[in-house]
Amino acid sequence: MADPRFFLRHGPFTLLQIARLSGACVAEGSDGSIVIEDVAPLESAGSKSLSFLANARYLDAFATSKAGACIVSPNHAGRAPPGMHLLFSETPYRAYAHAASAFYPPALPDGLLSVDGFISSSARIGKGSSVAPGAVIAAGASIGPRCAIGANAVIGANVEIGENSSVGALASLSHCIIGKRVTIFPGVRIGQDGFGFDPNPAGFVKVPQLGRVIIHDDVEIGANTTIDRGAGPDTVIGEGCRIDNLVQIGHNVQMGRGCVIVAQVGISGSTRLGDFVMVGGQAAVLGHIGVGHGAQIAGQSGVIKDVAAGARIGGTPAMPIRQWHRQTATLARLARKRRAADE
Amino acid sequence: MADPRFFLRHGPFTLLQIARLSGACVAEGSDGSIVIEDVAPLESAGSKSLSFLANARYLDAFATSKAGACIVSPNHAGRAPPGMHLLFSETPYRAYAHAASAFYPPALPDGLLSVDGFISSSARIGKGSSVAPGAVIAAGASIGPRCAIGANAVIGANVEIGENSSVGALASLSHCIIGKRVTIFPGVRIGQDGFGFDPNPAGFVKVPQLGRVIIHDDVEIGANTTIDRGAGPDTVIGEGCRIDNLVQIGHNVQMGRGCVIVAQVGISGSTRLGDFVMVGGQAAVLGHIGVGHGAQIAGQSGVIKDVAAGARIGGTPAMPIRQWHRQTATLARLARKRRAADE
Amino acid sequence: MADPRFFLRHGPFTLLQIARLSGACVAEGSDGSIVIEDVAPLESAGSKSLSFLANARYLDAFATSKAGACIVSPNHAGRAPPGMHLLFSETPYRAYAHAASAFYPPALPDGLLSVDGFISSSARIGKGSSVAPGAVIAAGASIGPRCAIGANAVIGANVEIGENSSVGALASLSHCIIGKRVTIFPGVRIGQDGFGFDPNPAGFVKVPQLGRVIIHDDVEIGANTTIDRGAGPDTVIGEGCRIDNLVQIGHNVQMGRGCVIVAQVGISGSTRLGDFVMVGGQAAVLGHIGVGHGAQIAGQSGVIKDVAAGARIGGTPAMPIRQWHRQTATLARLARKRRAADE
Repeated sequence: MADPRFFLRHGPFTLLQIARLSGACVAEGSDGSIVIEDVAPLESAGSKSLSFLANARYLDAFATSKAGACIVSPNHAGRAPPGMHLLFSETPYRAYAHAASAFYPPALPDGLLSVDGFISSSARIGKGSSVAPGAVIAAGASIGPRCAIGANAVIGANVEIGENSSVGALASLSHCIIGKRVTIFPGVRIGQDGFGFDPNPAGFVKVPQLGRVIIHDDVEIGANTTIDRGAGPDTVIGEGCRIDNLVQIGHNVQMGRGCVIVAQVGISGSTRLGDFVMVGGQAAVLGHIGVGHGAQIAGQSGVIKDVAAGARIGGTPAMPIRQWHRQTATLARLARKRRAADE
Repeated sequence: MADPRFFLRHGPFTLLQIARLSGACVAEGSDGSIVIEDVAPLESAGSKSLSFLANARYLDAFATSKAGACIVSPNHAGRAPPGMHLLFSETPYRAYAHAASAFYPPALPDGLLSVDGFISSSARIGKGSSVAPGAVIAAGASIGPRCAIGANAVIGANVEIGENSSVGALASLSHCIIGKRVTIFPGVRIGQDGFGFDPNPAGFVKVPQLGRVIIHDDVEIGANTTIDRGAGPDTVIGEGCRIDNLVQIGHNVQMGRGCVIVAQVGISGSTRLGDFVMVGGQAAVLGHIGVGHGAQIAGQSGVIKDVAAGARIGGTPAMPIRQWHRQTATLARLARKRRAADE
Repeated sequence: MADPRFFLRHGPFTLLQIARLSGACVAEGSDGSIVIEDVAPLESAGSKSLSFLANARYLDAFATSKAGACIVSPNHAGRAPPGMHLLFSETPYRAYAHAASAFYPPALPDGLLSVDGFISSSARIGKGSSVAPGAVIAAGASIGPRCAIGANAVIGANVEIGENSSVGALASLSHCIIGKRVTIFPGVRIGQDGFGFDPNPAGFVKVPQLGRVIIHDDVEIGANTTIDRGAGPDTVIGEGCRIDNLVQIGHNVQMGRGCVIVAQVGISGSTRLGDFVMVGGQAAVLGHIGVGHGAQIAGQSGVIKDVAAGARIGGTPAMPIRQWHRQTATLARLARKRRAADE
């Protein structure tokens, strides 16, 4: 379920009610009268929750999900686990968007509604912490001991920050849990909505972004970097990761321990990095893929499929680094030959 | 003319005065005594306005312009429409920079001079709107009903925001008109000067940026994205566009309805996108080109010429996506052959 | 030495004390009892300072350094200048990180500790300057005459800004000296820590960033651009440079006069650009290299080695622009031939 500290849930609804408001239909053999209390990702949904399958990459997660009900295309129904109630839709992502919006109607950005003055009376500031002028700390936020909150920074409602962490000037945090000894540089954006919508010419339908950002201990996050919160699962940055300036981390990204992400890298939604992965400057990693432990990705490369642990890759689309060098050399030689032939 | 809500105009000047201050000369047959009241782009200039032609791409616009006067290189004079008075210069962009600076001398950034306290007494805040702590709203700004202005956000003088829109924490807006149901995420920069100057070793001459940013209804703009205001024309984001984080939109860009721009894309100045264009992450689109309706541009590609409606392109320089895949496969095969020959 | 306006130095320490706290050992023939007062880069270190050699590119600087002592790998000892005392380490960068941290223990971010209210009583604001609401100006900062500080901007302790400069809304400056007539756009980040640490699986060791950012006169810096302060040397932006939006400038970068850096470019640490270098949008320049005067780098290219003065280069890895075009044409022709053969 979405963390109640950050999201206010409405409902419950019967499966039939959800079918109607989402444009889906109750599958034969499924019971429209069951009560659904929440939406949740396939992996974490329980018997009272509704999930969805919109990408065939997640068929295995669907087949083993404990979700009480699921929105799915009819042609994937055969993989449903026993006992799961189904809503059929040809556009499951859009149907889920409508269902999730019923449980979680749009709220104000930053969860700042309940702010009472610059520092809310219900915010907790740990011993030895400093809050610079202009910083805004919303209701229920909890700052650990010996932290420093920079000038004009904005800490959203119910955000938690561990001890000895610092938040740079003009950074903004919402919908997130921050570990100990974390250093967040100026202008960082953590916890805003991910880029989630159902694209269709009749008008995009926004998909509520119901996850959080979890930053583990000893992480550093560079200036003006953006880390979106999860769509359902959380976005997770592992212990000790070093993230440079102007990096984009999409929703649901999960990063292991000790990763090094150089400036201006983009990591698309739902991608998983193992421990000690290194990503060179301006590289892009496609969404929904896995990068193994210790893999090294050259600067400016474009990674579009899974990367094995320990691999060293480069180029666009990315390939083993030696293969890339060989291709570069081959093309240079062919162009030289052609030039010689032309002369 | 430049929107008087955002720009304070000086003058008028005679054409001869402008010639002198801009280092241009009045062409034979043109009348130095006519009074010029303003500068304006070729397309929108009227009989009292001065325009300029600095890029041969705009020769047709020059030939049909209703501008009363125009700064132009002598070798383009033959295309001038009848009745247009001409100033000759070998460096028309620099001459225009000087002329425009006479009408619009440098003002303070953000149009915030007239701020009286955090929220100006002349700002209008619609019913049901909330303004979080630390937000600065300058004189004459108008916020529609049911809007939310985030903590420490900055709304410049005379900016207009339509109903049900939200501005994230620490975002800044100036020289812009924002539609209804627009969502602006934290750290977004809208309306600052475009990257306009005449480059020459003796010192760059800044070109006044006299346009605005127009954001139509139902647009979303991701965290830390930057949208520069127009140089003369406006920068326009069409209805329902979805723009991700850390995107750069140059001055004068015009985007149709329902475009999807993924994170870290850069769109250079004066480029026009049709409706429903999709641009993948980290792609770059050169300035002064057109991208047709429904075109799809792959991530990381570099688009350097016009793109037909419905085209799917990729690579640097960008080409039809199938051609790109074929080239990628061809190079891989040649490198493999070479490797086999080497072994 | 690190600028005492921005960094509080501890010590002194004997060379033996430093050896112990940094995991290095005093080389035979070197004197562990000498007193070291500071750390400094090879080029600027004096007889009371400790330096380090971690990258063979700097062997010449090592051989001519006037540093009193230096941390170095034993196999480079032969190049040490006469009279230099040596600390041996197989991981000199990590050993330096520990030594530098002893002299300069971690301080609060932004040097804002001593802020007393939004505008410190010890800040100096020049005649005719304006400070918009919400701006924070820390202790000892000095703003020249006729400057404009934007709303909610943050100026760190002891920062100096020359006359007629402007700082955009929500920008943050620390550890920097800014010239005259400099224009800093909204959301710019100047002076935060560079991306400096010793990467090793047992946990990264942060390297104190002890330099500053020096911005010369007449520079413009675009929205949301980030410029890290030097690690030991300063990061320097030469007179009249024009830097667009969302650009990343790493620590120790030195840029000559009149450079033009288009949006979303990344320049890695310790790279030096001559005068009037032009870098196209989204290009990346590797660290520790030199780019000659007047060189032009095409958009999206990846520069991985020194560039000669006046060169025009493009591609990844970057090569002379004509060679790049030839390679592009060669590959296109080969793919077409292959396609013809397939049909």
